[in-house]
This record gives sequence, C-alpha cells and structure tokens, in this order.
Amino acid sequence: MVAEEYVLVTGGAGFIGSHTIVELLEKDIPVIVVDNMTNAVGGKEDDELPPVLQRIKSIVPPEKSQRMVFIKGSYGDEEILAKIFTKYKVSSVMHFGGFKAVGESKKLPMMYYSNNLGGSMKLIQVMQKHGVTKMIFSSSATVYSEPGPEDLPLTEKCPTGNCTCPYASTKYFIENMLKDLCHADPSWTVISLRYFNPVGAHPSGSIGEDPKGIPNNLMPYIAQVAVKRRSHLDIFGNDYPTKDGTGVRDYVHIVDLAKGHTAALDVLDQKKGFVAYNLGTGVGTSVLEMLKCFSEAVGRELPFKMCDRRPGDVAEVYCDPSLAAKELNWRATKTVADMCRDLWSFQSKNPNGYAS
Amino acid sequence: MVAEEYVLVTGGAGFIGSHTIVELLEKDIPVIVVDNMTNAVGGKEDDELPPVLQRIKSIVPPEKSQRMVFIKGSYGDEEILAKIFTKYKVSSVMHFGGFKAVGESKKLPMMYYSNNLGGSMKLIQVMQKHGVTKMIFSSSATVYSEPGPEDLPLTEKCPTGNCTCPYASTKYFIENMLKDLCHADPSWTVISLRYFNPVGAHPSGSIGEDPKGIPNNLMPYIAQVAVKRRSHLDIFGNDYPTKDGTGVRDYVHIVDLAKGHTAALDVLDQKKGFVAYNLGTGVGTSVLEMLKCFSEAVGRELPFKMCDRRPGDVAEVYCDPSLAAKELNWRATKTVADMCRDLWSFQSKNPNGYAS
Repeated sequence: MVAEEYVLVTGGAGFIGSHTIVELLEKDIPVIVVDNMTNAVGGKEDDELPPVLQRIKSIVPPEKSQRMVFIKGSYGDEEILAKIFTKYKVSSVMHFGGFKAVGESKKLPMMYYSNNLGGSMKLIQVMQKHGVTKMIFSSSATVYSEPGPEDLPLTEKCPTGNCTCPYASTKYFIENMLKDLCHADPSWTVISLRYFNPVGAHPSGSIGEDPKGIPNNLMPYIAQVAVKRRSHLDIFGNDYPTKDGTGVRDYVHIVDLAKGHTAALDVLDQKKGFVAYNLGTGVGTSVLEMLKCFSEAVGRELPFKMCDRRPGDVAEVYCDPSLAAKELNWRATKTVADMCRDLWSFQSKNPNGYAS
Repeated sequence: MVAEEYVLVTGGAGFIGSHTIVELLEKDIPVIVVDNMTNAVGGKEDDELPPVLQRIKSIVPPEKSQRMVFIKGSYGDEEILAKIFTKYKVSSVMHFGGFKAVGESKKLPMMYYSNNLGGSMKLIQVMQKHGVTKMIFSSSATVYSEPGPEDLPLTEKCPTGNCTCPYASTKYFIENMLKDLCHADPSWTVISLRYFNPVGAHPSGSIGEDPKGIPNNLMPYIAQVAVKRRSHLDIFGNDYPTKDGTGVRDYVHIVDLAKGHTAALDVLDQKKGFVAYNLGTGVGTSVLEMLKCFSEAVGRELPFKMCDRRPGDVAEVYCDPSLAAKELNWRATKTVADMCRDLWSFQSKNPNGYAS
C-alpha cells in the first residue's frame, strides 16, 4: 500500500484556507491543517476540531472529509512541523498562515515580521530538511508598488516592492525569498497567488469570513452593519477620480479564489521555479456599487456615512487575470451579486460568526 | 557611581566592526563585542580573545582598550543577548553582524535570510524588551536598485529594492523593517550607513581585512596575489563604457568608514526615526587604476588576466556623499594611494591574515 500524499495547509482555519480545504477535499485530496487558532474561533477543548473545520464536515461528504487531519500549532514551530513531516508524506504546502491586518501591522511591525516572515523561513527550512519542495503561497495584490491609473489593469510584470505597510512588505519579502530559493535550488517550485479582494462565502452559508474584532475590510464590515453589530458603514472618500467618486477594487468570490488554488496544484508538478499569478476578476467595483448590491441581497438600505479619504488608499485597483487563465486554466466565474448573496447567507445564519 | 553605558557591537571581529571598535575606544566609548567567529579567526580557546581584538589592544592605549568586553556568540541568540542587556547598560547597538558573500548568498539563500534577517529580528526584539531603541545599521550600496548611468552619483533618494542577490535583499529588507519599526515607535532612532567599497587597513598594519577562503572583493584578492597566495587577478570585463573599459567603483578607506560610524553615533540622540546615509568618497576608480596604484605600493607589477564580464555587474557605481557631510559632518579624507599603502602594510606583515 502506497502512503497517502497530503497537502499541508497552514492557516487552514482562516477565511481563504478553509474554503480551499473544501475544494481540496471535494477533489479527494487529503489535507493536514495546521493552525494556531490565534485569528480564528477555536474548539472548546484543545483537541476539539475548531468550528470552521466541523462545518467543513457538514459540507463535504464524510468519505472525503475524513481525509482531513487537524493539528493545532504554529506553522513556524519547527518541532510541530518536524513531527508532521515525519509522520505524514507531504507532497506540497499551501501556505495561508500569517497575520493579515494592514492597520495592526503598522502599529506592531516586529510582530508581523517575526510571525509572517520569521515563521515562513522556519517552514521553508523544515521543508528543505524533509525534501518537500513544492509550495503554493498566499500572496497579495499589495505586493505591487502603489499603482497609478497608468498601471491598470495590473499584470504580474508590474513593479513590486516599496510596499505601504509591513503586512504587504512581509508578502513581498516572502515572495522574494522564495524566488531566490527557487533560483538556487531547481528542485523547488513555488506558485505565488496574488489575491485581489476576496469576499463572499461558501454557497451553503456554513462557512465564511469571521474576522476577530472590528473588520478591516469593506464587505465583512457591511455584513456586520446588516446584522446590526455595527451602526453604519464609513465610506472613506467620495472624491476619487472614479465612476462615482468612491474607491474601486477587484472583488473576487472566495469560492473562485479557492478553486484558483486547486488549479495551481494541478499544474504545480509541471512548473519550474517561482511563478506568480493574479487572482481577481479583472473588473473594478466601487464601494457604493458593492453597498447597493449587498443592500439588495439583504432587502433593505444600509446606513453609511461619507468620511475623508484614508491616507495610503489609492483610487482604483484591478488586475489583468489573463496569465492565470492561460497557465492555470482558471477564471473567476461568480458575479458581485453572487458574492453579496453568499456573504449574506453566511452572515444572516451566523450573525456572530462561528461563535453563533 | 553611574553605570557605564556601552555600545554593543555585533560582528565586531569582522573587517568593518574591528576598525570601528578602534575609533570607539579611542573616543573613550566602552564597547561590548559580540561575534560568533564563524567568519573570523578565533582564539585557540573559547574564552581567549580572538587575534583581531588582541591586536586592537596593541593599537589603542591600555586605559582605553580595557573598556572592551568580548562575548563569543551569535547576535541572533536571544539568551546571550538577554544576558548582555541584563548585565550591562547598553545605550545603542552598532549592528555589523551578518554573512556578506554575494556569490554564496545566491547558492544558499535561506542561510542568508535566516542568519541576517532572522538574527536581526531577534536582536531588535531583545532590544525592544530592554528599552534600547538606538541602532546604527551596517547597510550597503547594494540596496539601490540596479543603477544606470543616469542615476549617478547615487543619492539616498535613489530607488532601492529589487536587489540582485539575497545578500543585498537581506540589507534592503532589514532597512525596511527598521523603517517600519521607527514609524510605529517614535522612541526608535536608526541610522543606516550604506557602504560603498570599503578597502585598506588600519595604518598601523596590525588589523585589516582577513577573508576566509577565496576573497570575494577586488582589493583583498589583489593583496593575496601580491603575497603569492593567488597566482593572478582575474579582471571581469574590459569593454564597459568607462574610462578604461574596466568596472568603476567608489572605494572608501576603512578608517574613514569607521569614523563615519562614530560620526553617526555623535548625532544619534539628536536624530528621529530612520535615516540612511551613503558612506563613500564620491569618486569612482576603475579596476585597472586600483591595480596600478596597488602595484606602486607593492613596488612591482602584479599579474592579471582579462576575462569576460560577470553577469549582474554594472559598469559604474559611485555615490553622492553630501548628505553625510551635511548631517553627520563626515567626509572621507583618505586617497586611493592611502588605501593601497595601508592594505599592503597589513598584508605584507600578515601574509596569511590573523593566522600569520
């Protein structure tokens, strides 16, 4: 009997990780989830499966979901990693783990560098020791140098670096480290997926985004306004040179994004070296358009206030997703209406997220 | 009695660190040297002062040199650092420690990231814990994005990043991390010194550059040719668009460079946040000019071969050193002839470096 090959998923209890696990299990791919639960709701006991993973079991048929192993721990913990790599045959790593709040990263940069960058270094070094040389890395559109209108749509060739916050710098630095590693050791392959704005939830309404504290991003914030956990939405700036004056972003449905990861996994063995792909729709949507669309999903108007621009925000960001279409055979298929409907389905069923 | 305030010098047994220690001691500034001796010749016993620090004692008067404490260990070792910060009152850190071979960094990137970047993160975090918030950081001209002729002379405002090797990336990443840290916590001050090409030796001939293995840089290589440890010098490219076709760099005397550090220390308390300064002469010298000048110091012709260009080398690099002149009141004063004379003095007295 050949030992099963696992995909190790770091940060698997998070928003993007959990939705990707569903897609992996649906494709009969066994997964090991490692998450220290600092940014997700944990089980009541340490050895209990966290709510999000329990819910995955309600979405995926049991013969598939039994192929998921959960290990509570940090992806930067060499001891835990060594145990995992010794006990299981790991074919590749999907590395979602990491702190992700832009504002917090500006206040506590060393925490971000130490956790995201330091942890990733340890993960990579343990992978090296165990001869695991394939990774799909959770990157971000924030690695691109502040884009002006002339840079749009952003292609993978646009300049990166000189990032505007430590969170983004950690993504940029890790990408560079992985690029250097692939250059030095041709046995390595890394696919870096640069996410634009992932939103929505699984259509089942069972899993979705459950940010701790005040949401940093537009859609989870609007959703909490809709369930009356927040009084109103603040819109930062309505005098941008955009269709309606509010900021324009490239929102992508979380299930589309998750499928981008399985598409990357499909080609991982055929690729060589470090390759980065934009994962977005290529279409820009304004804050007011998102608010209107989400209000329609909810069935009522949602309160908002117009505020001044926030420093560091740019008017418009959207990507050219054609490289992923060509090389990963992946395209986002879901609409903004789908994103709003599915987000509302999750939020209305789970007004307080996984603690509901 | 007020406790003496020490400057902690990481990598103090190295080329730049050791020459800076001389200048610090001469100015009656007590220093703690931490060095793990992986890249320098150590003492015969673990508790023995390494040769380079013994020699410093022969340069500096005893009442000054007794103010030097040596601790063998890594600057990224939290335990050793915690002991140092607990036992001594450290006012600031001069952070020279780190691997520095460009070619090796391309082959072993994770070793460079882990040691230079990972170690620096730990050093910074221990400093945070102990309320030490002043640092002078050993940076490099390699942080500048590959300069074209239109970028010369390089000022501190020239674009940085997209570095051509992991060694340079570690310097760039650490600079960025320190910048973010200073931005988040106004109690921090960091002066980053971007070295151009440090060469020469202390005029006493007692201390100098003693690279392990094959020298990576031009001048130590020529010096080893002069003492017949190497058969000849390879000159990489004589068809560059420069005065004589060979590459042009901004060489700076190691004692000038060391004085740049004490000049930075003088203003460290008055500065706020992160500031970077070029340390160079502002004058470009070609490989053939350096070879000619060094041959004159030695008193005979030195053998060389013309070879093809090396990938990644640029034609010409030199800096605008006026910001350091204005804000640090520092200027390089020594000539290329001084550099060659002092290097030859060290190398001829110590044909096999500190192992002589």
